[in-house]
Amino acid sequence: MSFSNKRIVLRERPTADINPSLDNGTFALKEEPIPSQLKADEVLIKVLYVSLDPAMRGWLRDVRSYLPPVQIDEVMRAAAVGQVVKSSSSSFKEGDYVSGRLNWQEYAVASSKHLQKIAVFPGVQVEDFLGILGSSGQTAYWGLFDIIKPKKDDVIVVTGAAGSVGTVVVQLAKIAGARVVAVAGGQEKCDWLKSELKADYALDYKKEGFLSEYKKLLKSLGFVDGIFENVGGEMLDAALSMCKPHARVALCGAISAYNDPNPAGLKNYMSLIGMRIKLQGFIVLDYQDRYGEAAAEMSKWIKSGELKTYTTVVDGGVTHAPQALVDLFSGKNKGKMICKIA
Amino acid sequence: MSFSNKRIVLRERPTADINPSLDNGTFALKEEPIPSQLKADEVLIKVLYVSLDPAMRGWLRDVRSYLPPVQIDEVMRAAAVGQVVKSSSSSFKEGDYVSGRLNWQEYAVASSKHLQKIAVFPGVQVEDFLGILGSSGQTAYWGLFDIIKPKKDDVIVVTGAAGSVGTVVVQLAKIAGARVVAVAGGQEKCDWLKSELKADYALDYKKEGFLSEYKKLLKSLGFVDGIFENVGGEMLDAALSMCKPHARVALCGAISAYNDPNPAGLKNYMSLIGMRIKLQGFIVLDYQDRYGEAAAEMSKWIKSGELKTYTTVVDGGVTHAPQALVDLFSGKNKGKMICKIA
Repeated sequence: MSFSNKRIVLRERPTADINPSLDNGTFALKEEPIPSQLKADEVLIKVLYVSLDPAMRGWLRDVRSYLPPVQIDEVMRAAAVGQVVKSSSSSFKEGDYVSGRLNWQEYAVASSKHLQKIAVFPGVQVEDFLGILGSSGQTAYWGLFDIIKPKKDDVIVVTGAAGSVGTVVVQLAKIAGARVVAVAGGQEKCDWLKSELKADYALDYKKEGFLSEYKKLLKSLGFVDGIFENVGGEMLDAALSMCKPHARVALCGAISAYNDPNPAGLKNYMSLIGMRIKLQGFIVLDYQDRYGEAAAEMSKWIKSGELKTYTTVVDGGVTHAPQALVDLFSGKNKGKMICKIA
Repeated sequence: MSFSNKRIVLRERPTADINPSLDNGTFALKEEPIPSQLKADEVLIKVLYVSLDPAMRGWLRDVRSYLPPVQIDEVMRAAAVGQVVKSSSSSFKEGDYVSGRLNWQEYAVASSKHLQKIAVFPGVQVEDFLGILGSSGQTAYWGLFDIIKPKKDDVIVVTGAAGSVGTVVVQLAKIAGARVVAVAGGQEKCDWLKSELKADYALDYKKEGFLSEYKKLLKSLGFVDGIFENVGGEMLDAALSMCKPHARVALCGAISAYNDPNPAGLKNYMSLIGMRIKLQGFIVLDYQDRYGEAAAEMSKWIKSGELKTYTTVVDGGVTHAPQALVDLFSGKNKGKMICKIA
């Protein structure tokens, strides 16, 4: 065990893209002693993997939102999985695997009430509790089944389909019997979405003429019943103009706009009226009381092989987390993007 | 009875503002004989009042929507009330008052199944079946009670508050015990909204510095629970940035954008995610099966004096309907705008 705890703190709020340099960028490295004293019910955890999520860009913004912004000099907030090193809680013992908001650091001290014990079962790894069995899977499940509520043969659009949430949504929508139109960046991802994830259609948004091809496809399918939106911007605008009456849009993310200091507005919001569309923003934390339901159902599908987990692991420790976050925004991941800490 | 039936037909689709001239404008006048032959179950009606609605601008647009566009040379679609002149239906007899889609014309022939008989009761006029007891009232009722679902002390924003729908929403929201912020054009309308309709706050969107005053007020009230949106554009954008978690927006209209060939987009749609806002477009026709429920409840409040009806009548016959529609878009009305035909 090292006697130093490397932690990545917020150095300065980005106004556009994140700068991954630890010298003069968005974040900075701090080295501190590993905490040795625990209060009652506290647990010391060695962090194994940290999560990289599009939502992190929002946490860096100093605005009113569902969570307070990360403060300057504060350790970057992140979901993570780790192993208990020391415990003053009767609920956790040395060696237990746990998940929680352990942040970008090598060692974390957390109150036992903010930790979940991980029970690994055949077919999954400990890091899957950051992805399909963590908030990405929960996000996919609740956005799809609570907001979109797909019926058999519905046309469901999934943008950001190759991402951590998108890969799960595509598979769940197929399990529900929907016809799935996946949108992702690059032909290779699109081919993978069709061959591996069984999406019925996959379109590359980086390809010239994408928007018109996209609208043509949606029209040929008889228009859209539901949209699981991770990207926003003109992609969402295009899909809104191609909705059936009473279409449902689960607005999960708008990654196209996160780094843009002056993002384009949603031009087709008037389609919401004519087609009586529900555009529902959501945050998975609101479903926390029901995570068990979703986990039980998804575990069943994982065990049966109907639902698969996809992860992109960045190696090299916590100092690589800022670059991994930048890579997430440029779409270098397939499935869940995580950084291996130890 | 004249032997001519004046009818206003669509001459050419407007690309921006409606041109009310009957010589070379959006509409044209046609004079035709009054129909004398009725088929089985048809009714000949003398039109008394026609409705002017913001939605009419949408019907002139050649796009996929909840109703097909009005065709060139077709009589302009409009809700209207009238009196039966001749009937080949056992359900209607001469002298009956009826409402239906009778359009911009002096005489209409309609199938009995597309007509509703009007039962006038003390406190209302026949023309109120175009307003508070017609689709404007239904729109207000269902948008408020089915989508926004106000609770006591909720902060409810109503834009276009002095219009046909807005005046009803303000009163219904007060009946529900909400705190009402009304937005309208001009100080005189705002004073009227407070003194006559008992809105708690009323702001003039034409006043310099409106947007910052608006946001300041909403913040001082502890942010917004529900928005009944008739205007759209930057007014909606401002309110979206001032929502409480789980706020509900009934998107009824976007009158600010209807005449604009290149309307500004909704910039703050990302607030929908952080605050888990539901932005729900709706069309009152979807509630047709439940009109009776709303009419019964609103009639009760009208009889008790809790709910009042406000109408702006344009006189002079059907040739004045195009100008009346233009006046509606410039906000010359308080309450429901109608044109007296006979």
